[in-house]
Amino acid sequence: MAKSHENVKAFGWAARDTSGVLSPFNFSRRVTGEKDVQFKVSYCGICHADLHQLKNEWRNSIYPMVPGHEVIGVVTEIGSKVEKFKIGEKVGVECLVGSCKKCEDCDNDLENYCPDQILTYNNVYSDGTTTYGGYSNTMVTDEHYVVHWLENLSMEVAPLLCTGITTYSPLKYFGLDKPGMHIGVVGLGGLGHMAVKFAKAFGTKVTVISTSLSKKDEAIERLGANSFLVSHDPDQMQDAAGSLDGIIDTVSAVHPLLPLINLLKTHGKLVMLGAPEKPLELPIFPLLLGRKLVVGSQIGGIKETQEMVDFAAKHNITPDVEVVPMDYVNTTLERLLKSDVKYRFVLGIDNTLNKS
Amino acid sequence: MAKSHENVKAFGWAARDTSGVLSPFNFSRRVTGEKDVQFKVSYCGICHADLHQLKNEWRNSIYPMVPGHEVIGVVTEIGSKVEKFKIGEKVGVECLVGSCKKCEDCDNDLENYCPDQILTYNNVYSDGTTTYGGYSNTMVTDEHYVVHWLENLSMEVAPLLCTGITTYSPLKYFGLDKPGMHIGVVGLGGLGHMAVKFAKAFGTKVTVISTSLSKKDEAIERLGANSFLVSHDPDQMQDAAGSLDGIIDTVSAVHPLLPLINLLKTHGKLVMLGAPEKPLELPIFPLLLGRKLVVGSQIGGIKETQEMVDFAAKHNITPDVEVVPMDYVNTTLERLLKSDVKYRFVLGIDNTLNKS
Repeated sequence: MAKSHENVKAFGWAARDTSGVLSPFNFSRRVTGEKDVQFKVSYCGICHADLHQLKNEWRNSIYPMVPGHEVIGVVTEIGSKVEKFKIGEKVGVECLVGSCKKCEDCDNDLENYCPDQILTYNNVYSDGTTTYGGYSNTMVTDEHYVVHWLENLSMEVAPLLCTGITTYSPLKYFGLDKPGMHIGVVGLGGLGHMAVKFAKAFGTKVTVISTSLSKKDEAIERLGANSFLVSHDPDQMQDAAGSLDGIIDTVSAVHPLLPLINLLKTHGKLVMLGAPEKPLELPIFPLLLGRKLVVGSQIGGIKETQEMVDFAAKHNITPDVEVVPMDYVNTTLERLLKSDVKYRFVLGIDNTLNKS
Repeated sequence: MAKSHENVKAFGWAARDTSGVLSPFNFSRRVTGEKDVQFKVSYCGICHADLHQLKNEWRNSIYPMVPGHEVIGVVTEIGSKVEKFKIGEKVGVECLVGSCKKCEDCDNDLENYCPDQILTYNNVYSDGTTTYGGYSNTMVTDEHYVVHWLENLSMEVAPLLCTGITTYSPLKYFGLDKPGMHIGVVGLGGLGHMAVKFAKAFGTKVTVISTSLSKKDEAIERLGANSFLVSHDPDQMQDAAGSLDGIIDTVSAVHPLLPLINLLKTHGKLVMLGAPEKPLELPIFPLLLGRKLVVGSQIGGIKETQEMVDFAAKHNITPDVEVVPMDYVNTTLERLLKSDVKYRFVLGIDNTLNKS
């Protein structure tokens, strides 16, 4: 297909102010550049981060804002120098659509840690325009930041591109992917349920740690965790002391770290994925005694995201999703606030927005 | 020399109660067992930990207490099955004289993380006796926990066995020993000055970070650090943001971690060696953004301690010490409280206690 020389007309839903309420929005995207892929959006996941940014809770919101950084679609046009993709192919875009391409992190396929990374929405692109995300009918993205979506992978499971890579990456990077290891997962939400699935797929034994016993059946029966700990039960926690090689902590609320550090074996690793607003209390002596490690991690680089998609397709590891129509989006945001979803909402763009 | 069948008469200085005041003390050590090395103590370093334990500040003190876990001497007797040592050889003993020898950590030469490790003093040995340290004229130690002290290494620099290995081990284990890396050292005391020396010997660039400008000349002129940062100067700290591959934090007082985390590059490592009494505030978001790591470390295993001694002998890396006679020990403890030493006291046992 010949490349158009006019800006690409786009239609989506945007928030106009800190109320965070979304409504229909006509806008345009850049002409498909020589290294760009243009694709029709089929599905877009709704991330908790969308909620924060829609309401300017991170104090950097740009309005109008079209959120969405878990985007799956089908290629409709490619630039003259695009090498990786062809028209009609299924593709995905995660949280990044740009980076400097020259720093050490970019050289090491860690665009997610590039200081000049460009986020998929609510950011400014290299041409000075605002980035708009996947709550829309079409995207134009530099092919470097696009991944292949495998044929046998449902297009609905778009949240792989955020909650999937965010849990896959630290399990791999910190060596918590070895069969026979024992991994803890704190919190059973969007991130937590994917951490359980990937850790199980890697052949590790998984213990879910939660404040509430009510999630035990879900964790063990449905997600396949091996055991369950109620974090408020000191006897249970004491019995499990020193048993875990690593912990994936997905909790965003302020919470105590000492009980988790105590669960780790010597040289064990506590990986923080949630971002509590206030600092947490870190006792140092227990770290010294066991050479234990507390670390943070966020999403993953593009190469690793592709690796994760391939792994998920091969092992059938997918997030549990509830697909909703575009005009239900404001209700989903209210339900998200109450954690009323198992475990991720996905906007069925193709069947709703494109037909509206 | 034939092995004696009577307990070994020993003489040292001990604290009798929480006053922490030391005075002469006659006691005995076990018969030299078949895997034991008996040695005449020549020098013993004074560690800050001695001060805490003498006064029962860690609430586990056993009196009478003969401290000392940086012990250098000359072998006087060996057991029938001793393989590594011979009479007349110079040897050293660090913080450990026993461990379970069967756990995963022991299997990996990490006796320092064995949960059943036996400390050189103020602990109970496998035969039920109290362990007494190197503030004494003689020691009897399982050869596994004894290291060779190289001929060209002064016997006075006994603190290598604690402050040396405590800084060497994390620099090696966490990969902060690569030429060209940039390492920060927080606090310029016994640990800090050794961290600077090892980091320089590994070929890294070193920045000392201190609350006080008064240590700048010492850090740069005498210890060879490349640069100096005053931690209370926000402009200096901001200019250095994102510049360090790793930080060795030796401070035992409660102090803020965020300014140190900000100094790290992405994937940088903050190694805690001090043990503040209260938890420190750990902001999580900066860890996530840069996949940064906070970790603890304590001393080192026996194999690594030997490696460190060999490295120190080869590269002439030694702690700065002030050698004092045994009967000056109570004064050194008072001076230690005021940090009035550069950088470690060492008891000249051979020239004083053995002749008294």
